[in-house]
Amino acid sequence: MNQQINVALIGAGRIGKLHGDNLLAHFPQVKLTGVASVPLEAGAEWASQKGIQRITDNYKELIDDPTIDAVLICSSTDTHAEIIIEAAKAGKHIFCEKPIATSVPRIMEALEAVKQAGVKLQVGFNRRFDPHFAKAQEMVANGDIGDLHILRITSRDPEAPPVEYVKVSGGMFLDMTIHDFDMARFLSGSEVEEVYATGAVLVDPAIGEAGDIDTAIIQLKFKSGAIGTIDNSRRAAYGYDQRIEVFGSKGQVAVANVTESNTVLSNGEAVVSEKPQYFFLQRYQQSFVRELKAFFEAVMDDKPTPVTGQDGLEPVLIAMAANRSVKENRPVPLDEIRKELNLL
Amino acid sequence: MNQQINVALIGAGRIGKLHGDNLLAHFPQVKLTGVASVPLEAGAEWASQKGIQRITDNYKELIDDPTIDAVLICSSTDTHAEIIIEAAKAGKHIFCEKPIATSVPRIMEALEAVKQAGVKLQVGFNRRFDPHFAKAQEMVANGDIGDLHILRITSRDPEAPPVEYVKVSGGMFLDMTIHDFDMARFLSGSEVEEVYATGAVLVDPAIGEAGDIDTAIIQLKFKSGAIGTIDNSRRAAYGYDQRIEVFGSKGQVAVANVTESNTVLSNGEAVVSEKPQYFFLQRYQQSFVRELKAFFEAVMDDKPTPVTGQDGLEPVLIAMAANRSVKENRPVPLDEIRKELNLL
Amino acid sequence: MNQQINVALIGAGRIGKLHGDNLLAHFPQVKLTGVASVPLEAGAEWASQKGIQRITDNYKELIDDPTIDAVLICSSTDTHAEIIIEAAKAGKHIFCEKPIATSVPRIMEALEAVKQAGVKLQVGFNRRFDPHFAKAQEMVANGDIGDLHILRITSRDPEAPPVEYVKVSGGMFLDMTIHDFDMARFLSGSEVEEVYATGAVLVDPAIGEAGDIDTAIIQLKFKSGAIGTIDNSRRAAYGYDQRIEVFGSKGQVAVANVTESNTVLSNGEAVVSEKPQYFFLQRYQQSFVRELKAFFEAVMDDKPTPVTGQDGLEPVLIAMAANRSVKENRPVPLDEIRKELNLL
Amino acid sequence: MNQQINVALIGAGRIGKLHGDNLLAHFPQVKLTGVASVPLEAGAEWASQKGIQRITDNYKELIDDPTIDAVLICSSTDTHAEIIIEAAKAGKHIFCEKPIATSVPRIMEALEAVKQAGVKLQVGFNRRFDPHFAKAQEMVANGDIGDLHILRITSRDPEAPPVEYVKVSGGMFLDMTIHDFDMARFLSGSEVEEVYATGAVLVDPAIGEAGDIDTAIIQLKFKSGAIGTIDNSRRAAYGYDQRIEVFGSKGQVAVANVTESNTVLSNGEAVVSEKPQYFFLQRYQQSFVRELKAFFEAVMDDKPTPVTGQDGLEPVLIAMAANRSVKENRPVPLDEIRKELNLL
Repeated sequence: MNQQINVALIGAGRIGKLHGDNLLAHFPQVKLTGVASVPLEAGAEWASQKGIQRITDNYKELIDDPTIDAVLICSSTDTHAEIIIEAAKAGKHIFCEKPIATSVPRIMEALEAVKQAGVKLQVGFNRRFDPHFAKAQEMVANGDIGDLHILRITSRDPEAPPVEYVKVSGGMFLDMTIHDFDMARFLSGSEVEEVYATGAVLVDPAIGEAGDIDTAIIQLKFKSGAIGTIDNSRRAAYGYDQRIEVFGSKGQVAVANVTESNTVLSNGEAVVSEKPQYFFLQRYQQSFVRELKAFFEAVMDDKPTPVTGQDGLEPVLIAMAANRSVKENRPVPLDEIRKELNLL
Repeated sequence: MNQQINVALIGAGRIGKLHGDNLLAHFPQVKLTGVASVPLEAGAEWASQKGIQRITDNYKELIDDPTIDAVLICSSTDTHAEIIIEAAKAGKHIFCEKPIATSVPRIMEALEAVKQAGVKLQVGFNRRFDPHFAKAQEMVANGDIGDLHILRITSRDPEAPPVEYVKVSGGMFLDMTIHDFDMARFLSGSEVEEVYATGAVLVDPAIGEAGDIDTAIIQLKFKSGAIGTIDNSRRAAYGYDQRIEVFGSKGQVAVANVTESNTVLSNGEAVVSEKPQYFFLQRYQQSFVRELKAFFEAVMDDKPTPVTGQDGLEPVLIAMAANRSVKENRPVPLDEIRKELNLL
Repeated sequence: MNQQINVALIGAGRIGKLHGDNLLAHFPQVKLTGVASVPLEAGAEWASQKGIQRITDNYKELIDDPTIDAVLICSSTDTHAEIIIEAAKAGKHIFCEKPIATSVPRIMEALEAVKQAGVKLQVGFNRRFDPHFAKAQEMVANGDIGDLHILRITSRDPEAPPVEYVKVSGGMFLDMTIHDFDMARFLSGSEVEEVYATGAVLVDPAIGEAGDIDTAIIQLKFKSGAIGTIDNSRRAAYGYDQRIEVFGSKGQVAVANVTESNTVLSNGEAVVSEKPQYFFLQRYQQSFVRELKAFFEAVMDDKPTPVTGQDGLEPVLIAMAANRSVKENRPVPLDEIRKELNLL
Repeated sequence: MNQQINVALIGAGRIGKLHGDNLLAHFPQVKLTGVASVPLEAGAEWASQKGIQRITDNYKELIDDPTIDAVLICSSTDTHAEIIIEAAKAGKHIFCEKPIATSVPRIMEALEAVKQAGVKLQVGFNRRFDPHFAKAQEMVANGDIGDLHILRITSRDPEAPPVEYVKVSGGMFLDMTIHDFDMARFLSGSEVEEVYATGAVLVDPAIGEAGDIDTAIIQLKFKSGAIGTIDNSRRAAYGYDQRIEVFGSKGQVAVANVTESNTVLSNGEAVVSEKPQYFFLQRYQQSFVRELKAFFEAVMDDKPTPVTGQDGLEPVLIAMAANRSVKENRPVPLDEIRKELNLL
């Protein structure tokens, strides 16, 4: 990485500021040329603190700036597709937070624009870049477990989201399990062929009243012949539970939770260890830096991004199949969803 | 436990000798009055070594002996139901190795005979008595995890059985997963309502040719509203993998594998720990003693046995539902199976 | 092991019954011919329960019996040396619980008698036979850690002994640390050359008033050039802490505590595991069986015993050096002790 | 922390750049006004990259600058005392990398200057600020283990330093164990009264030829009555081993190594985990940020620094006592050293 590239940050909310801070702290070859924030004040103080002089509430100014090479799209979900399309037309490389959009046709429009423009697109599935999960995937790809037979993912949040959020989230599969669907593809190196999911409302009845579920088990069949199971809960009393296991013909790789600290207290009652790290920002801190690193390397070295638009689309299809499976209590082939969306 | 009871051992194969040895070593109040072995020679040397004077190849002699209080049925599976029926008629309390029989009507006949006779029956689902699993179930029953939400069981063997055995085993669900179906009921304290299973042949094609599977994931819905997932493999390169996890509203209890030893070697390559204990006889050694203890206590104190005939039947129904689910690729309600067998 | 040997048990207290039970349960080729118990009643009920017909309060009857091949000496410490001498004279092989005696001259008398008679003597340092510690020693002997550099032993009891016992115990080093001195020799395969020890009274002032210590750190220099440190406490709030670590040129082997069960509970407060197994009889259960196995093999196959009289003597010398070191606050060479006792 | 303070960085070698980078990335209220680097070129490129305009090879320019509030002294050890004295005279608060100096009289001069000037001094014993060790100390201070009885520290490097470095390092105790002496004071909250140390040359004979040791065990007696043991090695085959254990009347707190990743591979041979993090910069990454945070908070809030000049002196005295102990093979009271240096 020896050139210099200019980047614009579109969106200065929590995740936008996070990416911005990382960019400033860790990427001397990348210049954070400007920030778009709506409303302006939301990002103004931060930008000023960080010494970023150019801040606007109109992202098009940044997209139209010929000196800018790439954009980081961290704005609200409903704006992602539109900004991708415009940025692609302006020839900018794009890093976009997940999801690309909440409807497949909209996603397809964005991907088409990117394809037409020939720019690079990377989707923010950061967990692939977590050192622990990345290492596990490396070991699988390296043949350490032989052929993958069984994949297991456990993903549980410390707190359920507010019911207001649940109502507009698109449902647990699109909002939360989407990461696990991506992780399943990442670890298996294969596509999901069929899904059978069971959903339940066990954490908070209000979530059920809002039309969503809060607990689920999703069974997957992969093209490769491997099978998998994901279990989710919106609330684990002990915090943020993020574990994977890949089992194959030669063995198994497992990743346990990262705890708050390594202290172990032994006393008259028990042997007491710390709970898992509580906040996703803390647990996945390194992954946010590493995904940006991968993006900038792809841009500078003219390589494909490691998480493409297609990688952004597939988990949405899996989520849609899972929703249908819960609703109709049957296994749902991905091709059934693809066919309806004219993707076959 | 202050009386003395007389017990006959029917069957002196591997599991019969195991129970016999445990009986002699750990139960001073229980007298092993006689052994039935077919053929006689198979058990004769062992019986002699152990100082058991009465050995016969005709189990009915022992069943007809009025001084005998209880029988341990460890003979071949196809004889279990018949011996149960005769022992029940003779008023003997019965400990019977799993399975009671391979067909539900036959199981029902045996259970009916036991019911009519008013004797006690305990089925040999020993894993319930493993100190680690028993402790986990205790914690769940004690409310340590609140209401059960998600149950996970991983059960993998070190070696697949010979194809000859596979052909007569009744299939992986009836032969191997049956323990996990029992464990699921034991841990959840609930009944399984519905099953969706995916089976695959990933370990050995010969197993598929023999009409069976060697890898599976089974999803369960419990009457209580909880959900569960079991994953099985006939061959784990690292040995015998037996793990459970119960997750609920207040937390989670997990049981990891018991390893060969606690030694940890750190060297230039890695930090190396021992693999799980390889043989089921070793891993579950204590459980075999403890299940007999529970049986003898039930007999001596006139209490119900902790693993009843009904406990012996239910996992067979779940296995049948799982087989159908794999065959027809749909979720199968247990009531569908029960209805066909006139059990509703 | 294909012959039959006849054994007499001398002493039927707690440890005597333990050895007796193990002998009966696990060694078909060994016949427990008779038991000596003082007083007779102390062992009579147990002997009767176990079907041992010959019980006496005069051990000489058993020693004089020409059919008896070996004796297990589990009587009170002050009788060990005398019984060893008489048994040796009678040509019996000897397994003797630690310690051989509390004074070195008396130990030397016993060892001399054994040498003269040419019989086998094994001392009951059972922890060498614990599967975990034995495996660690195997790995060291196998070169897995290269040359030993640093040895660490932690040994803490769940409860301090009663002050009455402390007064006659010979002191913590002779009573408790003696096992660790033996373990240090066993793991290092070397002799201790010099000792520096710090003792403190931190658990119970009454122990100090009784003239003993309850907390200590002992530093060891080995002939091989390796160095070591042992830390002891008479009371760990969390139970029975028994850990070792051997560090060398190629790596390290560590043995952690064995816990009550493998259950791990994660809840709103913490991740809670079980405490170490509490009772030495439970923690070292297998070691008692395995040390007898080694003894009987030595007898039957005419091999040296793995824990000789010399192995019984050395830790006593180390304990004496440690006591002097605490008293005079200086390092004490073992040769200083040996010289005074005319052992050089 | 709501004011702004101006800081000068003196020394732009590896540790200087590390502190500088952290300062820039994590402390918006702290302005890195200038950098002194000898030679100038060594730090010039870095300063330029970081946007630091003022760089000089004469640190006095920065010290004389009235706008500068504090200095970070990261220059070579032999300059520390001199710069402390001058900075103190100029009324600057001081963060100084360890050690203050290699001779006690020189340390005393520096501490006297700081005292006279009434400025704040913090010494760079960063491990106190490691989240894991800090948490352990917090638990001890909180009474979680009751009264401290036994302290254990293991500290082993992945690679021995070059012999050239060994010759000028002041010896292993002053160069490496110094951190453990500080950790012992930090965890125990007490002073070391007496030291007995054993040193050996087991890793590399060249180190012995250079007059140093590479393996050691140091026993400590604390004023509080607690006792402790530290073991060191200049080379652990498995990397960087940094562990502590504090045992007391109510229990024990232990901190294990932080591994490269949480992946665990189970295969036909073993269960394989990652080695400890290899580089001290990686293992203690957070501690460097947190120690600066503590320093700036002390400056801004006019509080005492958490690692004072006295904290910088004591471990040097302990190291001197340890050296004498090895040389003369006897326990050495700290007061003996203090007396000779007129510190009593």
